[in-house]
Amino acid sequence: MKDLSKLFYPGSVAVIGASENVLKWGSIIISNVLDGGFKGEVHPVSTSNETVYGRRASKSLRDIGAPADLLIITTPAATVMGILRDCVATGIRNVVIVSSGFSEAGEEGRRHEREVREFALANGLNVVGPNTMGIANFKEGLHGMFSHVRLKKGGISLMAQSGNVGNQIMYWAEQQSIGMSKFVGSGNEAALMCEDYLDYFHGDDDTSVIIMYLEGVDNGRSFMEAARRTTRDKPVVLLKGGRTRVGTKAAMSHTGALAGRIQIFSAAMEQAGVSMVDSQSEMLTLAAAFDSMPLPKGNRIGVVTLGGGWGVITADECEERGLTLPPLPEDVKARLDTMLPSFWSKGNPVDLVGQPDPNLFRESVEAMISSDAYDAVILLGIINSFKTAMRLYEATMRLGKPVEMNLEDMERTLDDLQNVFLDNIADLMEKYEKPIYPVALVAQADQPVVHAPKSPKKYNAIIFRTPEEAVSCLAKQYRYSRYLRKQGRKP
Amino acid sequence: MKDLSKLFYPGSVAVIGASENVLKWGSIIISNVLDGGFKGEVHPVSTSNETVYGRRASKSLRDIGAPADLLIITTPAATVMGILRDCVATGIRNVVIVSSGFSEAGEEGRRHEREVREFALANGLNVVGPNTMGIANFKEGLHGMFSHVRLKKGGISLMAQSGNVGNQIMYWAEQQSIGMSKFVGSGNEAALMCEDYLDYFHGDDDTSVIIMYLEGVDNGRSFMEAARRTTRDKPVVLLKGGRTRVGTKAAMSHTGALAGRIQIFSAAMEQAGVSMVDSQSEMLTLAAAFDSMPLPKGNRIGVVTLGGGWGVITADECEERGLTLPPLPEDVKARLDTMLPSFWSKGNPVDLVGQPDPNLFRESVEAMISSDAYDAVILLGIINSFKTAMRLYEATMRLGKPVEMNLEDMERTLDDLQNVFLDNIADLMEKYEKPIYPVALVAQADQPVVHAPKSPKKYNAIIFRTPEEAVSCLAKQYRYSRYLRKQGRKP
Repeated sequence: MKDLSKLFYPGSVAVIGASENVLKWGSIIISNVLDGGFKGEVHPVSTSNETVYGRRASKSLRDIGAPADLLIITTPAATVMGILRDCVATGIRNVVIVSSGFSEAGEEGRRHEREVREFALANGLNVVGPNTMGIANFKEGLHGMFSHVRLKKGGISLMAQSGNVGNQIMYWAEQQSIGMSKFVGSGNEAALMCEDYLDYFHGDDDTSVIIMYLEGVDNGRSFMEAARRTTRDKPVVLLKGGRTRVGTKAAMSHTGALAGRIQIFSAAMEQAGVSMVDSQSEMLTLAAAFDSMPLPKGNRIGVVTLGGGWGVITADECEERGLTLPPLPEDVKARLDTMLPSFWSKGNPVDLVGQPDPNLFRESVEAMISSDAYDAVILLGIINSFKTAMRLYEATMRLGKPVEMNLEDMERTLDDLQNVFLDNIADLMEKYEKPIYPVALVAQADQPVVHAPKSPKKYNAIIFRTPEEAVSCLAKQYRYSRYLRKQGRKP
Repeated sequence: MKDLSKLFYPGSVAVIGASENVLKWGSIIISNVLDGGFKGEVHPVSTSNETVYGRRASKSLRDIGAPADLLIITTPAATVMGILRDCVATGIRNVVIVSSGFSEAGEEGRRHEREVREFALANGLNVVGPNTMGIANFKEGLHGMFSHVRLKKGGISLMAQSGNVGNQIMYWAEQQSIGMSKFVGSGNEAALMCEDYLDYFHGDDDTSVIIMYLEGVDNGRSFMEAARRTTRDKPVVLLKGGRTRVGTKAAMSHTGALAGRIQIFSAAMEQAGVSMVDSQSEMLTLAAAFDSMPLPKGNRIGVVTLGGGWGVITADECEERGLTLPPLPEDVKARLDTMLPSFWSKGNPVDLVGQPDPNLFRESVEAMISSDAYDAVILLGIINSFKTAMRLYEATMRLGKPVEMNLEDMERTLDDLQNVFLDNIADLMEKYEKPIYPVALVAQADQPVVHAPKSPKKYNAIIFRTPEEAVSCLAKQYRYSRYLRKQGRKP
């Protein structure tokens, strides 16, 4: 297995082709490294600029002095081989080739890329790319890439064969307050292949979930083995681009002969314990769920809802995805009977019939999650229900009936109550080692998807946007949990 | 066909059970009517309150004087029959029964509901509910319902058998700036049935798209006929709750014997030209697309993208949903050749290889949409790409390199350019009568989904959040367009 630790944890970074030409790669990368909180040394290298963003630029790699742990190349393809020879000469071992103009650009590029591959292998260089948008380690503040995102630290590491897809996933993670650990765009994979990154993330202590966007796998067997090794310890979530003949053609990384192989690929991946997803947004939410919640140990689901229609939609989704909704055991029914109005549903889903009482929410959730009859609980419409109440107060205020409390204070109080409730969910997940899936009544546009309790807990609460999203995550987490058990591992 | 016009366009509204008890129905409904901009007369009716929100309350319906066009009942089930008799006596013909405690609440409730049904039929009353959250007409400012949403006016009318589902869809519409026309929660459908609302919306000039959430249909044949009549003129989007045995049980509106009938129901609906969807969010986005864009006349799709990976994902999605990506005709290729760097993809998807130039965006889109080879164009990653550029400028500013322009001015300028570009999309859709589907690079949390050009145009631009969402809408709009053609209608 290749040692990629200095690639992701470099003490120093050099950027060749560094410039201040804002929209060019040579500026985008170095401004991101300098602005992103990286604590190590940063060396701009440029033949044409004396200084770059206030740093003196070296004329060449030799000028830097001690060899940089990581070198990022942004100069044209034709310069790359010469630079790699300088790396060997100066002792640089980890290189990210951002430059394009290789196998994606015709016959000469392909020949050029073979040269890079052979040189890297012969000289033991770790080469990322070419034609990649870069690399990042959010814990280290290392942003050696195109995307100027600033993410919270978390356990999710991403490998993407497309820079665009990687870019979008990271922007979404930022928007939703989903923490990440590392990113690498593998580009054309001249030397380091997707299975190398998978193996590395497998062994990386800062990574708890691995997500991958793949268009093509050159060495299926070797990738499959890496996947099987990894999923015994960490969940792997995979989105495959180029699933169809047309998609494959668009990927341009394969011939038409590969059409139809996606079914075989997906089946092999599922066999290896990999969670396959259909979209980027599903990939991210599932990864956050893996990173934040305990796994369900079985498929018996309890549903608690603030109103009827949602329970129906959720019951449908569960049934369609192989989850069951067992009836309420007598003891749970009795416990809920003491809390709820006489006309409550008396079945699973448990309908709180519109009673907007935070204590009731907490106690009914605990009544369900503590029962041996259920492996997980889905919670519908309670989160953000107070926003609805605020609308009522605002309307009556405008109608000339002042509320006892200042509306801003009231909103803050209700918001605090909700945060306590979400903290409670994290507590209950830890207490019973079972997952709870709260679905917002209406997701607020500016609301983080991941709720981290004020004092850090073993688990975080995830706020799901739709019942479909919650059930889909739950079903895939259950599938992975079952896989682990079959492998003799404890979920 | 029943005349429901006064139900949705009343000149005056009375609310029985009106109060100032903020969290009770009698307050929620009247505060919403009073605060919501309704221009007609509003009459609180209450036996216990002298005034409600500053309005003198009538003691009974007879006290009001002239009969209200619409009466909303919020008092307990036991009072309802007496009130209906008063309606007949005082000439009130349109009634919304919000009160619960009918067929959803056991045998006595069922008996009570039969009584309501028979009385309504015998006396020609239009009765909505019981057990409904109300009715709304956004154009008229009429908010006779639980949800205190304030929506833009648009062509979408919603009928939901679940108040919760209706509530959530309307909040989403508000959040996404999607305009709506009308809402009705049909509740237990004691008298007015889902097909009655469908027929009414069909004939309603302010409605251009109908969306429905149904759990059960009592009279399948009559609903099917109403659907077939309607879809010849207007798209109908339907989400069915209770699709599975468990979901059906949760819906409690049917016996277990109905399990499996959903396949038959769905097939029948598709035959009747109804667009079936799987989730609430899909329902709303598809409705907005129907309301804002021309229908695709065929399934030949052109894709324009700012980078590679997305094109692959989109090509896959298209292929999986029966859409094709024909190769570029020579004339289009020649036209694009004059605009793009030499190393562009020269195929469909057209990859703009990261050139962030608004003129290029517009011209390449027009090159595609104007070609006879394509029925629709999907546009990936261009919308909001300027936000990425802003990050670069911000970083270089922080690194001590001032940009020539104030950053706020720059953001405003780029934002204006994007709005002009979206206006252009609306223009191009009108010019070529073909739909264009822009997918945001990263959807901004606070960004409206519907972009209405500054000077109102025939069409609006919709900003899709993911390629999957755009392709799914496109495929369903194409299916409907094909249905219309088969019916001898012009799409």
